Amino acid sequence: MNDDRILLAHGSGGRLTHDLIRQVFLPRFRSEALGKLADSAVLDSPGSRLAFTTDSYVVKPLFFPGGDIGKLSVCGTVNDLSVVGAAPRCLSCGFIIEEGFALPLLERIADSIRAAAAEAGVEVVTGDTKVVEKGGADGLFINTAGIGVVPPSVDLSADRIRPGDRVLINGGIGEHGLAVLVQREGLRFQSEIRSDCAPLHRLAADILRASPGVRFMRDPTRGGLATTLNEAAGGREWGILIDEEAVPVCDAVRGLCEILGLDPLYVANEGKLVAVAAAAEADRVLAAMRANPLGAGSRIIGEVVEKPRGRVVVRSAIGGLRVADMLTGEPLPRIC
Amino acid sequence: MNDDRILLAHGSGGRLTHDLIRQVFLPRFRSEALGKLADSAVLDSPGSRLAFTTDSYVVKPLFFPGGDIGKLSVCGTVNDLSVVGAAPRCLSCGFIIEEGFALPLLERIADSIRAAAAEAGVEVVTGDTKVVEKGGADGLFINTAGIGVVPPSVDLSADRIRPGDRVLINGGIGEHGLAVLVQREGLRFQSEIRSDCAPLHRLAADILRASPGVRFMRDPTRGGLATTLNEAAGGREWGILIDEEAVPVCDAVRGLCEILGLDPLYVANEGKLVAVAAAAEADRVLAAMRANPLGAGSRIIGEVVEKPRGRVVVRSAIGGLRVADMLTGEPLPRIC
Repeated sequence: MNDDRILLAHGSGGRLTHDLIRQVFLPRFRSEALGKLADSAVLDSPGSRLAFTTDSYVVKPLFFPGGDIGKLSVCGTVNDLSVVGAAPRCLSCGFIIEEGFALPLLERIADSIRAAAAEAGVEVVTGDTKVVEKGGADGLFINTAGIGVVPPSVDLSADRIRPGDRVLINGGIGEHGLAVLVQREGLRFQSEIRSDCAPLHRLAADILRASPGVRFMRDPTRGGLATTLNEAAGGREWGILIDEEAVPVCDAVRGLCEILGLDPLYVANEGKLVAVAAAAEADRVLAAMRANPLGAGSRIIGEVVEKPRGRVVVRSAIGGLRVADMLTGEPLPRIC
Repeated sequence: MNDDRILLAHGSGGRLTHDLIRQVFLPRFRSEALGKLADSAVLDSPGSRLAFTTDSYVVKPLFFPGGDIGKLSVCGTVNDLSVVGAAPRCLSCGFIIEEGFALPLLERIADSIRAAAAEAGVEVVTGDTKVVEKGGADGLFINTAGIGVVPPSVDLSADRIRPGDRVLINGGIGEHGLAVLVQREGLRFQSEIRSDCAPLHRLAADILRASPGVRFMRDPTRGGLATTLNEAAGGREWGILIDEEAVPVCDAVRGLCEILGLDPLYVANEGKLVAVAAAAEADRVLAAMRANPLGAGSRIIGEVVEKPRGRVVVRSAIGGLRVADMLTGEPLPRIC
């Protein structure tokens, strides 16, 4: 670490978050499962393989177009289980509440958790409530941890990615981060951008059914698509080449990103899934994704290449190439 | 709810916390496992029985005699697994950090998590880091969730408690809550009170080995011993009679409680375990507890009685009886 204070960027999901994890947490919590830095730890349990994951949600504001902190706290954790190939099974739910928080809001958020859990087919089986004095926290934070069951045949890992593989995504990027930003800053903008927040367990299962040999899946949340691809490619013998024209970005996101000087490749999603599949299976995976209501806008957006090793490169509409590094700094704090 | 705002007492672990859970969360998150309100949910998983639990830690200050937020976040969750009879196996760890937090402090706390996890024989297998802007949180909050494996033969539940059973505890009460309070308020007090924060997995295993038929175990944390006993007795066909003279309270805790007007029965512990065992097995359980380093001060402190039903009654040194209800209000916020 260059600095001895925590910066907002340490929570960005990008470069500094990775530094923090690698320099502070990994050396201390020596664990094979943790060291894989997957979205969920996969545990070999007697008689079953379990996936285990956690996320804290500090989104501000608590309600935004397309979702709220309750829905987010279910979908985010369900998705982390889904992308390691697990069938999500149950959640824990820990609330940290600021004194004075309005009870009707808490009820609305609990309703939203219930609805999202029902949609995702998971049960909230254990919980905890802490209250801190006024000013000790900002309204409400929620932590969920989740357990899922991983079928014995599933083996998803960036280790299995090979040059020639194709990279797919299930629709337009950047919607969640911008929806929260617009709501928080009270920006006036002609077309409403709604968060894509959704549970991806069925989409992930559809992909695994279509192509049991699919290499890798991940949900590009904090840090966006570019950061997620960098997490996969970092330190590898191969790289990823993304065709920028193929990456779905809706007009509203594109327009707002231009105004704000943001790159949609770095804006968070909460209902997107990146899959890497062998070239021969890519069309079958694409068809399965498109057949799912959450994958109608699926596209093949790039491929795994021999060079440059360990990097993500974006080919622009006019054919130029640029390196898309991991997110640095924190342009959009508290979006999840 | 009488009020429509969250009060500090909603996080006390006492009456209002229970109201919040029963009125807001349980009706929404309908779940058999959650409805049992045990310290961990016990899940029948293919081939194994799992315990799953979560707690958020918001203790202030972060460091106190006998522990810190890191040690607490491991022990608290390990203990919730232990008291349902599970062998703790792995933890998740979610950090919510205030911007500007000193990195060396975070490292010290991570070291403490590592040491406590090693002592408890658990691995931190998955984690999450969020950073909120300065003023958005008070330093650092930690959530841990834990998974443990429950042996098929274990069946611990307040449902199994019967009149005549004995109530045991492994040592002096009130130390954790007062240690944090003294540190936070900068109280000058002749003898140092240290938190009893410790992992209870071995003690719980020793009890189960000594008496496989032990009825019930729980760790009396927020709300203290009286609240924990009320949680067990509430709505039952029996009550609990505690012999106040038999309850271990060290001189320092007794003295400070007198000065501050607190009842040690309501002060939080983080290294105590209450067990209920059949009368015929109580001495064997007691011997097993005393043989454990964390149980040297174990005592039989009371018994399960036919009447008054559903209540906890305390017999004082001079023979008077008083009802010890669940904690109301929040005399000691942010002690865990």
